[in-house]
Amino acid sequence: MDNDNLNIELTPDTSALTQRSEEEKQQLLNRLKRVEGQVRGIQRMVEDDRYCVDVLVQLSAINAALKKVGYSMLENHTRGCVASAVQEGNGDEAIEELMKVIQQFSKS
Amino acid sequence: MDNDNLNIELTPDTSALTQRSEEEKQQLLNRLKRVEGQVRGIQRMVEDDRYCVDVLVQLSAINAALKKVGYSMLENHTRGCVASAVQEGNGDEAIEELMKVIQQFSKS
Amino acid sequence: MDNDNLNIELTPDTSALTQRSEEEKQQLLNRLKRVEGQVRGIQRMVEDDRYCVDVLVQLSAINAALKKVGYSMLENHTRGCVASAVQEGNGDEAIEELMKVIQQFSKS
Amino acid sequence: MDNDNLNIELTPDTSALTQRSEEEKQQLLNRLKRVEGQVRGIQRMVEDDRYCVDVLVQLSAINAALKKVGYSMLENHTRGCVASAVQEGNGDEAIEELMKVIQQFSKS
Repeated sequence: MDNDNLNIELTPDTSALTQRSEEEKQQLLNRLKRVEGQVRGIQRMVEDDRYCVDVLVQLSAINAALKKVGYSMLENHTRGCVASAVQEGNGDEAIEELMKVIQQFSKS
Repeated sequence: MDNDNLNIELTPDTSALTQRSEEEKQQLLNRLKRVEGQVRGIQRMVEDDRYCVDVLVQLSAINAALKKVGYSMLENHTRGCVASAVQEGNGDEAIEELMKVIQQFSKS
Repeated sequence: MDNDNLNIELTPDTSALTQRSEEEKQQLLNRLKRVEGQVRGIQRMVEDDRYCVDVLVQLSAINAALKKVGYSMLENHTRGCVASAVQEGNGDEAIEELMKVIQQFSKS
Repeated sequence: MDNDNLNIELTPDTSALTQRSEEEKQQLLNRLKRVEGQVRGIQRMVEDDRYCVDVLVQLSAINAALKKVGYSMLENHTRGCVASAVQEGNGDEAIEELMKVIQQFSKS
């Protein structure tokens, strides 16, 4: 698996893992598969010379879907990793990282 | 003009077409294929229990890539369809539609 | 009047004027005065040690109000200046400028 | 905890207070006074019929300044109120409120 070229800032640390519940994992994967299908749908629209505004509406729908996935992950991350770090007395770094990713994600 | 398919679901409306140049079409398709690969990359990250923040950084990257695709389409649409409509004296409807999709896209 | 320090990229060209209708001008000024009052309201909230989340909700309301003002100006600009430029056969520069300011504004 | 005033209008609720440091308070007030001046600057631009794109650039600058104020408050809120709530074992409600305001603020 090669995710290296997808990476922006964080170095690909394979040791940083998160234990998600099976249910959460499955829900995330379902949503992401739906997004993958939407992206392929837009490719077909471009191939079929569909009207720009229609394509833009679909792009907006994908962005909105990805935002939903992201905010759901953000909430789980805060309830999980960040809250644990705070309880163990080392929340500072976790909160700084959280704020950074919130800003990066919000602007995207 | 047909605004009926300004909706979120993929409508199989083949009537509203745009003539894009072969080069523009290919560039759009390449970008969208790259995005599709990024979405699959995130699915693997979730399957591998990768750290939430790393996944969120990738989600931000995809959103940013889709925004780029969208702004590029917006510009072509304005230079093409909207400018033609204005020159033919019926720009009002085209500009109203443009403003609507800009707001929808910007918020996504 | 000193707007120099408010400026980001565009140099303050006092020759670039736009003729807005009296009605449009008054509507813009009313909205901007309301925003000014909201900003002063937030200052009082901070002075009174009001709860952060309440202040953030007010900040969101101001941003939303400013976005509305901006989109309304964008639409007038496109219907006015940009459409005129297109009709006179020199729309290219106007559209490029439009796209730039849309992206800058959308991200803000 | 009191979520009743998670609304848009200014509610004269003096019960929900936050203790900010004098320094933080002064910094927030300075930034907000600067924003107030920027809003008045835009009013003058409209009165003087200044070019739409120049006004839009200023609007973008204000939005960006308000976003900065907001993210700075968000960070203090998370380090303060939210972290305290988590340490006292009742972080759930605080985190839910935090996520809600982040989404509202990000979209604005």
